[in-house]
Amino acid sequence: MNILIAPNAFKNSLTANDSANAILDGLMRSRLYGNFVCFPIGDGGDGTGTLLAERFGGTKLEVDVKDPVGRKVLSSYYIVENGKTAIIEMATASGIRLLDNCELDPLHATSVGTGELMVDAMSKGVEKVIIGMGGSATVDGGVGILHALGMHFLDSHGQILTTPENLSTVSKIDDTKLDKRIKDIEIIVLCDVNNKLLGPEGAAAMFGPQKGASPEEIRILNSGLLRFSEMIFRHNGKNISDLKYGGAAGGAAAGLGGLLNATLVNGADYFLQVTGFEAELKNFDLLITGEGSIDDQSLQGKGPVRAAHLAKKNGLVVIGLAGKVPLHSSNELSKYFDIILAIGDKPSSMSEAIAHTRFNLSRMSTEIGNLLYMLIHKLIKN
Amino acid sequence: MNILIAPNAFKNSLTANDSANAILDGLMRSRLYGNFVCFPIGDGGDGTGTLLAERFGGTKLEVDVKDPVGRKVLSSYYIVENGKTAIIEMATASGIRLLDNCELDPLHATSVGTGELMVDAMSKGVEKVIIGMGGSATVDGGVGILHALGMHFLDSHGQILTTPENLSTVSKIDDTKLDKRIKDIEIIVLCDVNNKLLGPEGAAAMFGPQKGASPEEIRILNSGLLRFSEMIFRHNGKNISDLKYGGAAGGAAAGLGGLLNATLVNGADYFLQVTGFEAELKNFDLLITGEGSIDDQSLQGKGPVRAAHLAKKNGLVVIGLAGKVPLHSSNELSKYFDIILAIGDKPSSMSEAIAHTRFNLSRMSTEIGNLLYMLIHKLIKN
Repeated sequence: MNILIAPNAFKNSLTANDSANAILDGLMRSRLYGNFVCFPIGDGGDGTGTLLAERFGGTKLEVDVKDPVGRKVLSSYYIVENGKTAIIEMATASGIRLLDNCELDPLHATSVGTGELMVDAMSKGVEKVIIGMGGSATVDGGVGILHALGMHFLDSHGQILTTPENLSTVSKIDDTKLDKRIKDIEIIVLCDVNNKLLGPEGAAAMFGPQKGASPEEIRILNSGLLRFSEMIFRHNGKNISDLKYGGAAGGAAAGLGGLLNATLVNGADYFLQVTGFEAELKNFDLLITGEGSIDDQSLQGKGPVRAAHLAKKNGLVVIGLAGKVPLHSSNELSKYFDIILAIGDKPSSMSEAIAHTRFNLSRMSTEIGNLLYMLIHKLIKN
Repeated sequence: MNILIAPNAFKNSLTANDSANAILDGLMRSRLYGNFVCFPIGDGGDGTGTLLAERFGGTKLEVDVKDPVGRKVLSSYYIVENGKTAIIEMATASGIRLLDNCELDPLHATSVGTGELMVDAMSKGVEKVIIGMGGSATVDGGVGILHALGMHFLDSHGQILTTPENLSTVSKIDDTKLDKRIKDIEIIVLCDVNNKLLGPEGAAAMFGPQKGASPEEIRILNSGLLRFSEMIFRHNGKNISDLKYGGAAGGAAAGLGGLLNATLVNGADYFLQVTGFEAELKNFDLLITGEGSIDDQSLQGKGPVRAAHLAKKNGLVVIGLAGKVPLHSSNELSKYFDIILAIGDKPSSMSEAIAHTRFNLSRMSTEIGNLLYMLIHKLIKN
């Protein structure tokens, strides 16, 4: 049996590479034999850039930039395609993983470091920038990125605003100092969520809490982003509040879409397309994919569902593995997955489950291999 | 595909019947079609007697007896085989489920109620008594049962001991008032554990804690059971400390084996044999079995492993479902199960997991059905 092993990262636990290796390890321990190939996938979330760079054979460049709270941090990005393209991940410069829990501060956290990476990439002469938007600590609408590029947001006193705290007081967008090179660069923003910028399912309300925002702070952030979108509309007539994916990365997707002509895309679909995933599928009978949680939210374009969609289109059997699955079988999800399995070994705390993800993935894969081995022999015999 | 659904009870959550129905319900919701038959199994644990009686078409008799703490409780047993055989469950008269947690009191809890059921059955003229030993609240070596039958244990002052608290002071076994009818009755004791009577893996040390015993109480109980076994050896030359299964039901298995010529058997094997399980298997391709936990302990003769053993012998594919499975695949268990799946949907507390057992069993069965459907079509097509 030919099995393609294409999991997403398991958030807070395993990278996509590590997940794939755990599954491969488990299959190798089973009775099943066949061709098992790892094809870890990303959807714009933390780690997607590294996966892309590995596929494309990129060069890693290290740069000192400002982290979300203004400290110097050694960040990095990749140059691929003979220097023509930069792959940047927000998480390496403006990521939640750069902060301790007690440092989360969404009213002041800034995406400026990601902008500094872009400036560095422009200085290398790239023609295209791909930005993975997942895992940011910020809800600043990309004001930090734009500031680094020379675009400034001023209040009525002419003060430059660099954090979202006072974004609702912005009264002028000054692009006179914007780095002119940016106009010639194609910007692709890989988004891992569909959410729009504003409102109860917007950047502040949906993703603010995990970045440390209190209800009052969510209100302030949403008001700031609303004002930000109104100012952009006045500035160039673009309505970023309607942009699909605009709520990704604390609204940075919307900001870059509104002011830099960036193209916002579903990160998973983009990843699968540029890596030739569908062509690869033709060599396999079965896809094993997975993610920390597979649930109805996954239907909004998450990596495993998009991979499963292509696999089903090509007639593969699809197995989904996750730490968390819906309590009741989902008819929608079962269009994509022939079986969805929660990998946990027993009732346990979240921290224990996260610590055991690798073992649980590996065990489950051994068990799946053993079942497939037996079914093949049983069914072919009969 | 022909599937035999033969789970054990899921302890503290679902009876074997309910477990089987949850699995059936899940399969029926899947894309798979075929012959799905429920064959809930028991291994001597709580509920086994009811399952046996259902198979044999028994009559239920209700009797007032003493519960483990001496209160009157309406208990019951079954008469089967034209009145020749009684099926008794310790759990219905001396069971832990008759007590609140705060009432657990292993130094005083007595199995006398189970003995009263036996007396009632004898009055009905049965020739055979089958006793399911699981789920007792007692660690009394069966002193209560024997007392009810007229066999008394006296201390040096001639006082009759009825609880294990002072069992280490027993100095005489008085069987002059033993109900004579018992000698003509075949007694089969269905044991759900292999443990012997004494020591670190004995009735007190292994099962005392779940019956509320503190470390000091475990010491007292073990000393009492040691004295009890020495007195039986003096009385009739039988060494009950060596009896396999002797530690079942707080040593009641050993007591009945030593003083009543009861036959102690593996409850699962006995159940599967008398219900014709193996013959039934020949009509099926796949067995789904399960229990609250499938682990290395299950190899010591638990229902799912014994059922899986027979299924493997007959060439079936075997799927094991459990709330808890080993973190790492077990080579020993994989001799019996082609796949062992933990049914939980996510990291959760034990109480939440128990509350969701039915949903989780059902969902997992739907998912399994969908996978089998796809694999059959895929494999047969290729």
